[in-house]
Amino acid sequence: MSAPTYEALKLPSFVETVLVTGAGGFVGQKLVLLLLKLYPNLRIIATDIIEPPNHGITDTKRLRNVKADLGKPDELKGVFDGEKVGGVFALHGIMSGGSEANFPLGYAVNVDSHRALLEATHKHAEANFPQGHPRPIYVFASSLAVYGAVTPQSVVDPKTKPVVPESSYGVQKHCIEMIVYDYGRKGYLDTRTVRLVTVTVRPGAPSSAASSYISGMIREPLQGQESLCPIADSMDDPALDYYLTWVGRTKTVIRNILWAAVVEEKQLKEVSQERIVNLPGIQITPRQIIETLIKYGGKDKLNLIKFKKDPAVIRICDTWAGAFDNSDALKLGFEVDDSKTGYEGAVQDFIEEELGGKVA
Amino acid sequence: MSAPTYEALKLPSFVETVLVTGAGGFVGQKLVLLLLKLYPNLRIIATDIIEPPNHGITDTKRLRNVKADLGKPDELKGVFDGEKVGGVFALHGIMSGGSEANFPLGYAVNVDSHRALLEATHKHAEANFPQGHPRPIYVFASSLAVYGAVTPQSVVDPKTKPVVPESSYGVQKHCIEMIVYDYGRKGYLDTRTVRLVTVTVRPGAPSSAASSYISGMIREPLQGQESLCPIADSMDDPALDYYLTWVGRTKTVIRNILWAAVVEEKQLKEVSQERIVNLPGIQITPRQIIETLIKYGGKDKLNLIKFKKDPAVIRICDTWAGAFDNSDALKLGFEVDDSKTGYEGAVQDFIEEELGGKVA
Repeated sequence: MSAPTYEALKLPSFVETVLVTGAGGFVGQKLVLLLLKLYPNLRIIATDIIEPPNHGITDTKRLRNVKADLGKPDELKGVFDGEKVGGVFALHGIMSGGSEANFPLGYAVNVDSHRALLEATHKHAEANFPQGHPRPIYVFASSLAVYGAVTPQSVVDPKTKPVVPESSYGVQKHCIEMIVYDYGRKGYLDTRTVRLVTVTVRPGAPSSAASSYISGMIREPLQGQESLCPIADSMDDPALDYYLTWVGRTKTVIRNILWAAVVEEKQLKEVSQERIVNLPGIQITPRQIIETLIKYGGKDKLNLIKFKKDPAVIRICDTWAGAFDNSDALKLGFEVDDSKTGYEGAVQDFIEEELGGKVA
Repeated sequence: MSAPTYEALKLPSFVETVLVTGAGGFVGQKLVLLLLKLYPNLRIIATDIIEPPNHGITDTKRLRNVKADLGKPDELKGVFDGEKVGGVFALHGIMSGGSEANFPLGYAVNVDSHRALLEATHKHAEANFPQGHPRPIYVFASSLAVYGAVTPQSVVDPKTKPVVPESSYGVQKHCIEMIVYDYGRKGYLDTRTVRLVTVTVRPGAPSSAASSYISGMIREPLQGQESLCPIADSMDDPALDYYLTWVGRTKTVIRNILWAAVVEEKQLKEVSQERIVNLPGIQITPRQIIETLIKYGGKDKLNLIKFKKDPAVIRICDTWAGAFDNSDALKLGFEVDDSKTGYEGAVQDFIEEELGGKVA
């Protein structure tokens, strides 16, 4: 249950200010908290479509919170005005369920606003850093959802597996991956893309994402609430073993997003010409989620799992790969959870950090 | 030297009007000519940034020529107003050299105007075809330039070769491939993408494309003009055999672009979930180009080839694959040139169609 390490996470000295978009989201909040913890002298601009939380920081030199719609040129400009941004974490976006339900909104946010942010960062870099100076570091959070045409039994090797998204979300993420790469290739920005693994355990309410049950089956019962298992009929259903699921412990994923800004550009390009890394994950089964629930919450929590197959969810889960090759990421210094104990670590984190150590 | 066949090229009966963009370009002009020849009752809207040629057709019911900048909403709207478009051939674009030289222009044309065209076609379809009616057929011309991280000795199999473009052009084409696929996946349009092979012999002046010499070494000397061979020092240079080059005879490529509109959607999706086909090609060497020049133009034409290595061209040619797996395309009824005689056929076509049968 070894935790991620932070010693090597040194940002280049010219990175005195970083911008985090989607800073009000779960991943964005956790990243801002880690930046605050690791870098006492770093200025952080945190932006989102609603005002992000200030995490108790009232010194606006340290943390500047900006409510901004990055799709609106004047609001985007306002984020950069008067700043000297040396690093960007582009995390904002419409999630998979939302992008599938609202086609124009998905493209407006996941494509158009990201292109606008890229170009704004490029122009900002030209205006603020002299020629020959290292370019600002730009980390784009993509998703393993760009891969489709796979099954839960697949092991994806990025070197031989073409990207075939099965959702508008995957298409949009892949387009921006490519354009982010192009800004890097042209030398406009020092770009890096990380494809996020399913983060677990996500706090908060169930979402419309098909993957929602992966966190939900732990999260709700540990709080004494019912949760749906949409891929199986009962504890005897072999689907509980079939749907191999690729996940990452929240704090490991957050550490790795930050590591993406630290890893050397040269080393990254040697491993991935397009500077894209599939973040490492570990494989769990739905049965393992339930067993871990019982271990940490007690046998009675099983009664809170309501088995009811949902064909729509199953159809989507059928297109998810159960494993990815981690070797490129590990070679580059990204970290991976222990394959045996990592998932329990994620559940313990959730109990400690989100439930204040108390299980219902 | 068998020519492509046209008997099977039946468009669905609801396709009474087709739109061809980039209709003033080489490929666009040839496609319009083929449409005029094969379909006497088809209405063709031909558009380009400059007014496309009318090919001697003065009946504007048969051929409507529109000068339009598809990046301008009102001009794009003007193309569709009052029409009932059942098929689109989206061929317009900034070529590879131009996209690399002018980053914003490449994105404006190769990405933004194509997205606008897709959405305009989608809206047009909703307004003009009732629910349940087959969707308009949308053929997007992409390019094998989306592939990078290969060498002239590579044989690319699309099933195991991820797309890693090495140019803004390749990035832009790949983004639109993905978005075109998304419109198909959502059922908005019946979309098909063909990745064009290098078309030979291209008429006209040498272009800024690195591939320009492939047509140039035949085209200029046959007209008594000098031409540069930028990848070799002399006829003894092994580079003339090393730079395996993947090409298609013009009329075969044009036939295949039209075939993309005819092939059954169901069959296409079975072969390629994302409805993308690498158009078939044949392999030639630079030496073979020169030998064919001598065969059709006489030994003295060799004096018109000026050998002068250009590191910039070589750097790009080093990233081109010398061959692609044709099998998916052939399974779907796309045609391929004869591997032995196809290139000579392309040269004969050029002499007959572009030089009026006369060699200098």
